[in-house]
Amino acid sequence: MNYSIIRTILGHVIRFEGAFLLIPVIIALIYGESSGIYFAVCGAACLVVGTLMTHKKSGNRSFFAKEGFVSVSLSWIVLSVIGALPFVLSGVIPNPVDAMFEIVSGFTTTGASILPEVESLPKCMLFWRSFSHWIGGMGVLVFILAILPLGGSSEVYLMSAESPGPKFGKLLPKLQKSAMTLYGIYLTMTVIEMLLLLAGGMSLFDSICTAFGTAGTGGFGVYNDSMGSFSPYLQNVVTIFMVLFGINFNFYFFLLVKEVREAFAMEEVRWYLIIFAAATLMIAANLTIVQGGSPFYYLHHSAFQVASVMTTTGFATVDFNLWPNFSRSILVVLMFIGACAGSTGGGMKVSRYIIYFKTLRKELSTLIHPRSVKVIQCDGKAVDHDTIRSANIYLIAYIFIYMLSVLLISFDKFDLTTNFTAVAATFNNIGPGLNVVGPTGNFAGFSMFSKIVLIFDMLAGRLEIFPMLILLAPGTWKK
Amino acid sequence: MNYSIIRTILGHVIRFEGAFLLIPVIIALIYGESSGIYFAVCGAACLVVGTLMTHKKSGNRSFFAKEGFVSVSLSWIVLSVIGALPFVLSGVIPNPVDAMFEIVSGFTTTGASILPEVESLPKCMLFWRSFSHWIGGMGVLVFILAILPLGGSSEVYLMSAESPGPKFGKLLPKLQKSAMTLYGIYLTMTVIEMLLLLAGGMSLFDSICTAFGTAGTGGFGVYNDSMGSFSPYLQNVVTIFMVLFGINFNFYFFLLVKEVREAFAMEEVRWYLIIFAAATLMIAANLTIVQGGSPFYYLHHSAFQVASVMTTTGFATVDFNLWPNFSRSILVVLMFIGACAGSTGGGMKVSRYIIYFKTLRKELSTLIHPRSVKVIQCDGKAVDHDTIRSANIYLIAYIFIYMLSVLLISFDKFDLTTNFTAVAATFNNIGPGLNVVGPTGNFAGFSMFSKIVLIFDMLAGRLEIFPMLILLAPGTWKK
Repeated sequence: MNYSIIRTILGHVIRFEGAFLLIPVIIALIYGESSGIYFAVCGAACLVVGTLMTHKKSGNRSFFAKEGFVSVSLSWIVLSVIGALPFVLSGVIPNPVDAMFEIVSGFTTTGASILPEVESLPKCMLFWRSFSHWIGGMGVLVFILAILPLGGSSEVYLMSAESPGPKFGKLLPKLQKSAMTLYGIYLTMTVIEMLLLLAGGMSLFDSICTAFGTAGTGGFGVYNDSMGSFSPYLQNVVTIFMVLFGINFNFYFFLLVKEVREAFAMEEVRWYLIIFAAATLMIAANLTIVQGGSPFYYLHHSAFQVASVMTTTGFATVDFNLWPNFSRSILVVLMFIGACAGSTGGGMKVSRYIIYFKTLRKELSTLIHPRSVKVIQCDGKAVDHDTIRSANIYLIAYIFIYMLSVLLISFDKFDLTTNFTAVAATFNNIGPGLNVVGPTGNFAGFSMFSKIVLIFDMLAGRLEIFPMLILLAPGTWKK
Repeated sequence: MNYSIIRTILGHVIRFEGAFLLIPVIIALIYGESSGIYFAVCGAACLVVGTLMTHKKSGNRSFFAKEGFVSVSLSWIVLSVIGALPFVLSGVIPNPVDAMFEIVSGFTTTGASILPEVESLPKCMLFWRSFSHWIGGMGVLVFILAILPLGGSSEVYLMSAESPGPKFGKLLPKLQKSAMTLYGIYLTMTVIEMLLLLAGGMSLFDSICTAFGTAGTGGFGVYNDSMGSFSPYLQNVVTIFMVLFGINFNFYFFLLVKEVREAFAMEEVRWYLIIFAAATLMIAANLTIVQGGSPFYYLHHSAFQVASVMTTTGFATVDFNLWPNFSRSILVVLMFIGACAGSTGGGMKVSRYIIYFKTLRKELSTLIHPRSVKVIQCDGKAVDHDTIRSANIYLIAYIFIYMLSVLLISFDKFDLTTNFTAVAATFNNIGPGLNVVGPTGNFAGFSMFSKIVLIFDMLAGRLEIFPMLILLAPGTWKK
């Protein structure tokens, strides 16, 4: 293990977080909140510590997948520990495990909260929660790569360990340029959403926080009823941008370089939109039949909730926990599908399901026609064996962690649907589940032990499991 | 598709079922039940039709995996349709879908029932339900192969399509001898259990039915409270035999040929027993802590229920739906593990989990030490690539069917835990689930549509998915 290069990377992360922590200080100054001081202190401390850690250049350049995974998982843990400090120090969330849960939920863009209400929080705290979504959405190491040339093989391993989903193609040959382009698209879309929300009469603060929460497909809101009291226009803007941020960013990249045909040939994006439309229509139909009333009203809320769950954002305009079972089941299934690979959304990703479906279809076809030779293709290109293998192994690891998590949190007193969807909502980085952890509920009632399990699940979900497993494998730390 | 050979195989199945149907006639004669006439009529008709269908020898000998799968799935459907006739004709279960549900549940050794109570049923009907477990447990085609030399490649494909679980090794070179040995072990163990039950004071009829239900890991009982009112001795006999019938039959085969070391080297059997012991202890501890009282009392019932769920039998001595959530969650996890491959138990099988776990461990090790070359081994032998691939594809197919089934049955009014465990209980051939379908509940409340979905799941679970998928694939039927 190359400890010195990992130290340098962690130093960069701490330094960058120091800079991020200074932004809520500005908010605190504007609103005259004394709790801004905690962000100032933590930010300053991070800048000093981070600079010291990055000062001594590492001579050892050897950097492989193992170092990449360990750097990424440690970075996210350090990021979260520091990010939780202002909550604990200010007494807004005095319990360290609760504060850790809240900020991990922020950085991993989960949006699950242990706070029973948020409207009484200082604005700088609300801003930090939402800002953590924006940082975590595209990835903090990707951000660092966009700005600092780390050089060498480390860039490849860091970027591939932090960006979610299987990759069918490559972005740009220069990784720094890739990272900059991704963040450029990300920032531009966030600003556009913010402007559209402002145009709908939302305050500047709410617009910024909402845009951050949508862009990172996070889910932390600034009101107790999430988006329930916003106007239909504002809700529709959020619906559209949730869907847009759940799309593979390669799509926008292709549009940017005017390869429109390549963009629209992306199977994953097509299926993502088909699933979104189908689920929206089925739920709207189910609600209209069961509850009676205008189908358009239900279509509006169905589209919002489907976009929110499928993109793993977690905003809500209504309490979908009160919907009929068929609609609730569709949402549960969507929880396990998730958004596109290469988007800010979480979950298992549509592209993995495409690989699984094509693997299954190929197997059936081979059984029926044993002499035919078939290759699995996506976007017109053959999917290599490694991509298929790693999608299979991901599924296996996913199921093991899922089962174990449900078992571990069932020591608490909650019902199976709560436990099952609490793991679904955190492991897939969605936020709300059903019953106790439904849109109007929260995670406060779980024991400290269960919260630690769910914190692990949020990190494992965001980093796609293996960085967290490598961190725990004894073999990683052996000489 | 070689239709003529499939016709011959179906003819054999019908002929054998005709003979099976005559056994309940004897029970009816002993107890003086008039409903025995329906078994006599159906049995005679089957003998005639089956003999006519097998009379003309097929000249076409081409028989591949496709024909194997189609023969097996069609055999099981025909077996079930005929098996449901006495229920419908006698008016015991007048609705054909309900009768089909009941007998599919019997042959697939699920043990899920749509009957709110069973004690008022004629003995011949009770016998037929339990006997269907015994026939389905080891497989009807395996039975036919044990008696009739079908010859050629058909034996290989039929046997591999009907016997559950991935295979690490081979039984005997002669398949007919394999089938005979398997049924020999099966019959001997059934008789021993029956004698032990008789020795405990159980009536002959109850002993036979209980032994059939245990041997096939079925779960249909002859009393409304399943095994609740039996003495602790009788319950312990059933616990032990459920565990024994959930063990890979290769284990007994090795003992039979005196290869004791090979028998005890079987990793699957070891893990199966470890999981059984661990789950039993955890549940007993949980019950003792939460409910208070004697740990031995809880150990007794915990062992029974764990054996029942893990081996996918489905008997019950207590209503485990009333247990604390942690215990209920353990049972749900066990529902997804199942028994050993090559046993009469269902579910995903312990050996698949061993393959999954070793695949995962190998991946982690490769990430940590990229230059090391590792091979996945089971029982000291390398597991070939095809076995691993098909275990992966099984998992994918399993998840797709699971999700779709939960979605389809959620049109009914039941809660998510009911729906989720109803699919778990049928797809894994267990029987009872939780809440509405718990040990004291039944499946009667589901709509006809949901029952058809669950019938499909029971068959797909017993035949390990692919025979049923091949039957539905349009490519199978194209010229």
